[in-house]
Amino acid sequence: MTALVTGFGRFGKVERNPSALIVSDLDGARIGGHDVAGRVLPVSADATPRAVRAALDETDPTLVLLLGVAPGRAALAAERVAVNVFDFDEPDNDGALPVDVPIEVDGPAAYFATLPLRAIIEAWHEAGIPGYLSDTAGTYLCNAALYTALHATADEPLPVGFIHLPSLPDEVAGNRPPEPSMPLETQIDGVRIALEATVAALVV
Amino acid sequence: MTALVTGFGRFGKVERNPSALIVSDLDGARIGGHDVAGRVLPVSADATPRAVRAALDETDPTLVLLLGVAPGRAALAAERVAVNVFDFDEPDNDGALPVDVPIEVDGPAAYFATLPLRAIIEAWHEAGIPGYLSDTAGTYLCNAALYTALHATADEPLPVGFIHLPSLPDEVAGNRPPEPSMPLETQIDGVRIALEATVAALVV
Amino acid sequence: MTALVTGFGRFGKVERNPSALIVSDLDGARIGGHDVAGRVLPVSADATPRAVRAALDETDPTLVLLLGVAPGRAALAAERVAVNVFDFDEPDNDGALPVDVPIEVDGPAAYFATLPLRAIIEAWHEAGIPGYLSDTAGTYLCNAALYTALHATADEPLPVGFIHLPSLPDEVAGNRPPEPSMPLETQIDGVRIALEATVAALVV
Amino acid sequence: MTALVTGFGRFGKVERNPSALIVSDLDGARIGGHDVAGRVLPVSADATPRAVRAALDETDPTLVLLLGVAPGRAALAAERVAVNVFDFDEPDNDGALPVDVPIEVDGPAAYFATLPLRAIIEAWHEAGIPGYLSDTAGTYLCNAALYTALHATADEPLPVGFIHLPSLPDEVAGNRPPEPSMPLETQIDGVRIALEATVAALVV
Repeated sequence: MTALVTGFGRFGKVERNPSALIVSDLDGARIGGHDVAGRVLPVSADATPRAVRAALDETDPTLVLLLGVAPGRAALAAERVAVNVFDFDEPDNDGALPVDVPIEVDGPAAYFATLPLRAIIEAWHEAGIPGYLSDTAGTYLCNAALYTALHATADEPLPVGFIHLPSLPDEVAGNRPPEPSMPLETQIDGVRIALEATVAALVV
Repeated sequence: MTALVTGFGRFGKVERNPSALIVSDLDGARIGGHDVAGRVLPVSADATPRAVRAALDETDPTLVLLLGVAPGRAALAAERVAVNVFDFDEPDNDGALPVDVPIEVDGPAAYFATLPLRAIIEAWHEAGIPGYLSDTAGTYLCNAALYTALHATADEPLPVGFIHLPSLPDEVAGNRPPEPSMPLETQIDGVRIALEATVAALVV
Repeated sequence: MTALVTGFGRFGKVERNPSALIVSDLDGARIGGHDVAGRVLPVSADATPRAVRAALDETDPTLVLLLGVAPGRAALAAERVAVNVFDFDEPDNDGALPVDVPIEVDGPAAYFATLPLRAIIEAWHEAGIPGYLSDTAGTYLCNAALYTALHATADEPLPVGFIHLPSLPDEVAGNRPPEPSMPLETQIDGVRIALEATVAALVV
Repeated sequence: MTALVTGFGRFGKVERNPSALIVSDLDGARIGGHDVAGRVLPVSADATPRAVRAALDETDPTLVLLLGVAPGRAALAAERVAVNVFDFDEPDNDGALPVDVPIEVDGPAAYFATLPLRAIIEAWHEAGIPGYLSDTAGTYLCNAALYTALHATADEPLPVGFIHLPSLPDEVAGNRPPEPSMPLETQIDGVRIALEATVAALVV
């Protein structure tokens, strides 16, 4: 059984994207009886959806956990929903800046994530890791990756979800006003815990 | 040579106060050629100033670094100034709730901290630890401790300052909306770095 | 032609709900060739959806603009999407506190609002009124009202949307920390402008 | 009897500074038995203090209320204290960017404002205008104006204070994320109320 775990690389002002570092750390690991297959996705309205579908095809996962950074957020955020829209505040890595463009022209307005979000959040709190249920994954590539994965697997009983990560401490160390952050080690623990809580909920 | 390092214990909603935990961790350590003398201060308009003066008398320090927690802050905050007022939003541990009461009846309106704040902040950034210069230490016991220490040592060439600490992650793990936090290990590193940067500036 | 405009009354800490006051102000007015039919909805997981459907039936509108207050928001917020979930942080006026309960058991995950959101926001900015496109209407009764209205009219070419309003100034005048607000007159102007911009977009 | 009321003009991203508009509105008015003398100060580390002293000399006031805008603040802020430092995040209108430079080389660390702050805030709340007691006026020209006025009048029994104002709505209408604002009319009311509350406290 394979857990597909994806992240993103550099974009905008984000130089060290914790999602790519976590993917690099967990790729090849065995967590909750699953082999982790890590992928770093492009930051591109054009290429992200295609890369998500390719990763699903290549890894044939039984569990999908997508990751991305959300500068300014203070805790791990388990996303509840993905909406069918690209609406960018800043250009992607290709320079594209779509406004109110559907991700899937004939797709539904939204999908709910199919991870056991409450179990994940409870497991974070038991471990002392700040985390919460978020009602918007934004309208950038993070949301698009989640929407695409849920759309591509809509007919399969596959747990699929997205966790937004705080910035790394060294990325924001000199920022004024100060911004929240979370160390990479805590983030890795949080992702491991999310994978384990998902597997535990599957078994039950 | 002695570095007096103080913290506070429980108060209000703060159960695990990182400042007391750091004092416990560093008490007896040797940092930058100084022996750390740790003290945990009472959270009390009546007793805090007296405890600060007693700690100064007992330890005869060559460097004073006071610590306290500031829930909601996202980074280490080196305080620039302490003002001569008690003005509480919540009662202290004795149930006192002073409004616009001077700490020292005949004291000046404020003192500037005498730590090398810029050197401390630069050292934090080099170490990848989020930190900033804060222009208000509030009007609760943290400010009162700093004001008292600066007032008591106003005629001495002694570096005295205050660092406000974020909440510990496990203290805010379940809070909604999510609140920023910083692990104890990072906070301890930050305090060590502040002590070392202060000593380095003294030598120069 | 009828424009159905709805609001909510008291709930939780909100005593003077600007949405009910705007409904009271605009009920019976003629705006953009439409007669405004105002309705104040109950704050209730049980009753809100029913009241929305009843209002649609009774008024047979050609345009639907739902209003609600969102304490803490700094500007008018034109909502992009409504999701199929009740998930309350505080009880409704019946004392109900549903968690992750669908609004419509067999409904889709979400609907996009069908108002001309960009035209509305542009019209606000031309008038100097702060407003923005919001990506989450929350998971309380505001979202539920919008979801219900969009679900009930899904097969009709009817513009339906929701605007979240800031608190009234007098509701937050003494709050610490200070909270954003907007005067009722500005809010009424903003709602009128939204109705006019919607009608203008319809005609084109 | 003269009430000196000062504001500032354009600087940085602030095009329409509400403090200058209020000064323009109130100049020559009679409020609480005082004739208002309005002055717009330069935004300049070099010239602001000089202009404050000149305004005091020219108008020989019995009451001094300084005004300035603080983008991002949600309510009127009666400042408690002014500190003896220039420390700019953005250049002034002369291009100067001082860091940790004293305003008055031999001046004390700080002065407390001598307005009846509690009476002002209570009067705002009775009028339904959001306002609060602020513990930092920053380290830009607003703080410098207050420090200079308090330093120049330190030996006189003269009420001197500073109110920070939110942005005007049209200044932030298109900003993302949305920012708090307050209409000019409400701000003018708030300043009038502050003057009247100060005069009432003087008489008592």
